[in-house]
Amino acid sequence: MSLPTQPYKGARDFYPEDKRIQKYMFRTIRGAVESFGYEEYDAPILEPLELYLAKSGEEIVNEQTYAFTDRGGRQVAIRPEMTPTVSRMVAARRQELSYPLRWYSIPNLWRYERPQRGRLREHWQLNVDLFGLDGVQTESETISVADTILRSFGAKRSMYEIRLNHRGLVDYMLGQYLGLDAVQSHSMAKLIDRMAKMDTATFEMQADAICTPGQREQGTLQALLALLHTKELSHLPDQLKVHPAVQDLDSLITSLKDGGVTNVRFDVTLMRGFDYYTGIIFEVFDLNPENNRSMFGGGRYDGLVGLFGVEPVATVGFGMGDVTLQNFLESHGLLPELACDTDLYVVLIGDVTAPAARVVKEMRDNGLRVAVDYSGRKPDKQIKVASKKGIPYVLFIGERELQDEIYVLRNLVSGEEERHGVARIVSLVEDHRKHDDR
Amino acid sequence: MSLPTQPYKGARDFYPEDKRIQKYMFRTIRGAVESFGYEEYDAPILEPLELYLAKSGEEIVNEQTYAFTDRGGRQVAIRPEMTPTVSRMVAARRQELSYPLRWYSIPNLWRYERPQRGRLREHWQLNVDLFGLDGVQTESETISVADTILRSFGAKRSMYEIRLNHRGLVDYMLGQYLGLDAVQSHSMAKLIDRMAKMDTATFEMQADAICTPGQREQGTLQALLALLHTKELSHLPDQLKVHPAVQDLDSLITSLKDGGVTNVRFDVTLMRGFDYYTGIIFEVFDLNPENNRSMFGGGRYDGLVGLFGVEPVATVGFGMGDVTLQNFLESHGLLPELACDTDLYVVLIGDVTAPAARVVKEMRDNGLRVAVDYSGRKPDKQIKVASKKGIPYVLFIGERELQDEIYVLRNLVSGEEERHGVARIVSLVEDHRKHDDR
Repeated sequence: MSLPTQPYKGARDFYPEDKRIQKYMFRTIRGAVESFGYEEYDAPILEPLELYLAKSGEEIVNEQTYAFTDRGGRQVAIRPEMTPTVSRMVAARRQELSYPLRWYSIPNLWRYERPQRGRLREHWQLNVDLFGLDGVQTESETISVADTILRSFGAKRSMYEIRLNHRGLVDYMLGQYLGLDAVQSHSMAKLIDRMAKMDTATFEMQADAICTPGQREQGTLQALLALLHTKELSHLPDQLKVHPAVQDLDSLITSLKDGGVTNVRFDVTLMRGFDYYTGIIFEVFDLNPENNRSMFGGGRYDGLVGLFGVEPVATVGFGMGDVTLQNFLESHGLLPELACDTDLYVVLIGDVTAPAARVVKEMRDNGLRVAVDYSGRKPDKQIKVASKKGIPYVLFIGERELQDEIYVLRNLVSGEEERHGVARIVSLVEDHRKHDDR
Repeated sequence: MSLPTQPYKGARDFYPEDKRIQKYMFRTIRGAVESFGYEEYDAPILEPLELYLAKSGEEIVNEQTYAFTDRGGRQVAIRPEMTPTVSRMVAARRQELSYPLRWYSIPNLWRYERPQRGRLREHWQLNVDLFGLDGVQTESETISVADTILRSFGAKRSMYEIRLNHRGLVDYMLGQYLGLDAVQSHSMAKLIDRMAKMDTATFEMQADAICTPGQREQGTLQALLALLHTKELSHLPDQLKVHPAVQDLDSLITSLKDGGVTNVRFDVTLMRGFDYYTGIIFEVFDLNPENNRSMFGGGRYDGLVGLFGVEPVATVGFGMGDVTLQNFLESHGLLPELACDTDLYVVLIGDVTAPAARVVKEMRDNGLRVAVDYSGRKPDKQIKVASKKGIPYVLFIGERELQDEIYVLRNLVSGEEERHGVARIVSLVEDHRKHDDR
């Protein structure tokens, strides 16, 4: 019986042509994030299970976590998200670290769920976090980082929109303003979070079911529905407008627009799934009519580091998944054709392996990426292999070439052949690579 | 009760200063490997458990694998090695791929073992594989890749040694030459593999125990001991010298020495742990007297792809672990001091966040990595933070600076201050970074 060749369900093999895309995406992301002074960190994929019991959404821990007991009897989980881990790391060195702390990571995360478009069991997620700063300048920077990443891929502001809300405003709105108690508020927030996925009648029916008879009489549902239709901060009822969260949202929108981030708006229906957010929250939406949906988001979560028994740290962060990002780039035609990283394929004419090795070494020492075909097959066959791999040049080396120190360089795209010494070949191929690089 | 802050036992948190070392190591490795035309691939960390039952060493599957049953009832493992995975991937596209295939990956691997120097539960391992070529030129290239990696870190050939053997020679030596049967041969090979870790008397006693009374009478043990003391291919008994494996080893040593890899020698005691090797095997030894041990190795394993029900593919590969490599680099003083990736720390004088943002954006658009301190603390305190983070420059921006478009740049190492416009600042800082880059 032979072994199966497919990867584990809901996870991906990355063949070189797939890995090339991932590397391009991560390189672009790193460039954008590091331009804001963020430094990369990392951590083990296994964590104690209890790390996720405290503050993640219940669904994630109960149904979606890859959890098991290790050979030493410890309950462990393959990380389903990075936020608890980074909070743990900050807490471990709470006193030694110098704030503000700008950290990012691109970990792989696992969730047991039914694989579907944009949702896989294993995905990579950029995590960007800024620790140790209060004030909306923090949120403004974090959102600017997200915006800069998308712009670095060539996205236009008409392709996506950044929507903002504030957990403090949500709590005040559902509690003091509408008069719901804590349990009702929690249910209502969860319902609003799913609102876009149901029709109006269903939403209203379920919202009505959360209200008490007294609230129904007072018109609580109508007040809620009116609120949920509010598109601008300035259209909020006066009682809400004076809430400090509204001032913060207003300053944030001004700061972002000042910085050229014009595609930003208040969205009273934005809730975010995780329970740990404490202030401003945001989500980035794809505006492609065929794929109009939330891509990623984040917000302020000042409480997590404190769960580890140290003084809490003000924190704003976001996570951006690779699958969603790649779908966005593809659907907007933003993913470039990526050439093979190998510059040159050497075809040996005759038994010249040993002397040719010296020429090849000289080219490598000068920075070229050179593959050699030792198969002894006919040159035509070897050229075909190079071409199929997407390598731009073939170099022929035979006895005569070694004697003259002049080699035949063929451009596999144009078919042109030139004869040059090593130095000229190196500079020609490097020029081609620079021209091709993005 | 508060949550614990330490990472999972035997695994590492990578704070930015640790991640910087890892990134430097991986960047150097990628540069060396890609110069030989290798392309990067990747795969999920979870694989079906059965993938490891077929050909890995027994110890790994039975005692060291992180295995569990997923929520769908599948038996899965967190990969303890990459070779079965890459074989699976090649098998899945056996017909479509064009050979030779040069692939590499730097996956994280998990083994449940007692953490100790050089051995952790999670480590990263470079895997380099060359598929589809027979002939010692394949081994010569693969070993040259390993050598080039170490040389790229600045290692001298006197710091390490490459030792070679051949599974075909081992089998012939133990079987036809010494007359051991298959079971005895297997036990003897395992014993020789552990030989360096025991004293001579223990080894001889255990080797003797494997022999039959008849073999003892014939002097099999003495013949074995004589063999194990052989340091050169040319000193082997004539009956072994004519074996094709000896010719191959001889050609390989010549080819490597021709290419400048002079620190290579035949080692008849070299066995390698994994059962899947079929031809030449090699290991790289640290020659540091305080740390004299095998660092990593590889060899030819032509059979693995065939386990997936397709035609086998000739394969040579090796794996190199990050912990061992880092120990080697540290013990030989080869790990450089690595500067923080952030170029510039902006200290705002007064309430100039909004206008300063435009200056900062211009610097970022020109390629600088710029962090801004929005804390409003005293400049001295902000400078201290920059200095502690290892950022080379501080830039002061206040109202007067914004008016003049001339900013104060302080080099935190020399303490020197200069006043310049944005363009000059960008070129100064970029020059510094280039000078500092390795």
